Amino acid sequence: MTKQELIEQIKIKRSFLCVGLDTDIKKIPSHLLTCDDPIFTFNKSIIDSTADYCISYKPNLAFYESQGVKGWISFEKTINYLKVYYPHHFIIADAKRGDIGNTSAMYARTFFETMDIDSLTVAPYMGEDSVVPFLQYPGKWVILLALTSNKGSMDFQLTEDKEGNRLFETVLRKSSQWGSSDNMMYVVGATRGKLFCDVRQIVPDHFLLVPGVGAQGGSLEEVCEYGMTDECGLIVNSSRGIIYADSSEVFAEVAGEKAQELQKQMSSILTSRGL
Amino acid sequence: MTKQELIEQIKIKRSFLCVGLDTDIKKIPSHLLTCDDPIFTFNKSIIDSTADYCISYKPNLAFYESQGVKGWISFEKTINYLKVYYPHHFIIADAKRGDIGNTSAMYARTFFETMDIDSLTVAPYMGEDSVVPFLQYPGKWVILLALTSNKGSMDFQLTEDKEGNRLFETVLRKSSQWGSSDNMMYVVGATRGKLFCDVRQIVPDHFLLVPGVGAQGGSLEEVCEYGMTDECGLIVNSSRGIIYADSSEVFAEVAGEKAQELQKQMSSILTSRGL
Repeated sequence: MTKQELIEQIKIKRSFLCVGLDTDIKKIPSHLLTCDDPIFTFNKSIIDSTADYCISYKPNLAFYESQGVKGWISFEKTINYLKVYYPHHFIIADAKRGDIGNTSAMYARTFFETMDIDSLTVAPYMGEDSVVPFLQYPGKWVILLALTSNKGSMDFQLTEDKEGNRLFETVLRKSSQWGSSDNMMYVVGATRGKLFCDVRQIVPDHFLLVPGVGAQGGSLEEVCEYGMTDECGLIVNSSRGIIYADSSEVFAEVAGEKAQELQKQMSSILTSRGL
Repeated sequence: MTKQELIEQIKIKRSFLCVGLDTDIKKIPSHLLTCDDPIFTFNKSIIDSTADYCISYKPNLAFYESQGVKGWISFEKTINYLKVYYPHHFIIADAKRGDIGNTSAMYARTFFETMDIDSLTVAPYMGEDSVVPFLQYPGKWVILLALTSNKGSMDFQLTEDKEGNRLFETVLRKSSQWGSSDNMMYVVGATRGKLFCDVRQIVPDHFLLVPGVGAQGGSLEEVCEYGMTDECGLIVNSSRGIIYADSSEVFAEVAGEKAQELQKQMSSILTSRGL
């Protein structure tokens, strides 16, 4: 998917919501556990009931891998379902991969060729040659970790170098040379408030993937105040707050309502920004 | 596996070699491609012919994931084969995972519970709460990226903070507080020469996993000169130099010879160190 197509979807849907498919076999409604593939069945229901309100889905690989081969089957079925029934939704494989060049090239083959997914989250620690192999696929995106939403982000991401640059700023500055705002995005946690301004100083045009609204305590208003661009420039993710909002037989309807609540907030923010 | 058991194996085998199972379907001997599961068949032959000369195996997940579900089946079969036939070999899942706490806990479940693997490589960028969930399993190990062997390691790992600490040093210093030398190791690339001394200043007792000997140009002698401890403290990995040394029908025998060559060098280094 190109940047223009993504912006188009945001305008059509009046939403920049991504639904995180962090599907944990231990947390899904118990009545699904007798199905052949409970994880895929859960995802399918969640997708059908939220698709009108979001522009993106983000399965986190950890939750699928925890089931071994069975989990990978559920993951592939979920991706295929999205590609067939919801081809305009932007798919993010949240995998936080990254390795030496020849190995990153293998990961790129997995996610961009074998599975034909739109984008992949990548960790920056190993530097340029660990990221560049992912940038060789037209229409595919690297979403690089910059400033994450968790407490541990303080440990290294905020350390300052001699010139006063924090590590996340160095990551943004260097990595934005490896690609462009047409094939790179950055992860910036919703809990970061005014730090979004510092991010926007360095990458004014890149899309940001923003986790941490909802269960992790980030504020949608604040994220938009400091992080939104003229083209929106934000994909805001909510996982637990939507998919586990209810654990009864009507879980999917409730998930749909939660997604719609966020979509409505997003719609008025977009309107107030003239988008 | 405990640290003492690992050291025991090194002394019995006179080797601290790890064979990297970076098994690429595009690089294995063509006569294997007609097998039911070419990747597992290749791995089984490589393992059988190298097991006497090494103390560890390190499958890199990227190579398995690139085949999707089929690849995960090959991976699981390889792990099971090792656990049944070579239970004293230390298994490293080279996956470079790391995510927010609840997600890292899922990855830990995958590799340490579902698959019961000895250790996992983890990326440090997201900090303490992304690493700690992996440290909750007795007998299991986190192998944290510190100073990698690739060119891109220069981009961030060697940046200096205000006090002159390079990022890899900050990673070593902080993270060594999260666990101990009984459940944490560090990745330090073989191409790092004298930087091993700086690593040993901070983590004198931790085992180091050292990739980059062979195809990447690192020197075994140099690694041992600057990185070895009284308990050896090194697991040196070779992947391509062993498993792709030959692509004919005798590939496994040649791989065994290459592994033996390294084992012999390691044996004399251990002897010269009184180990």
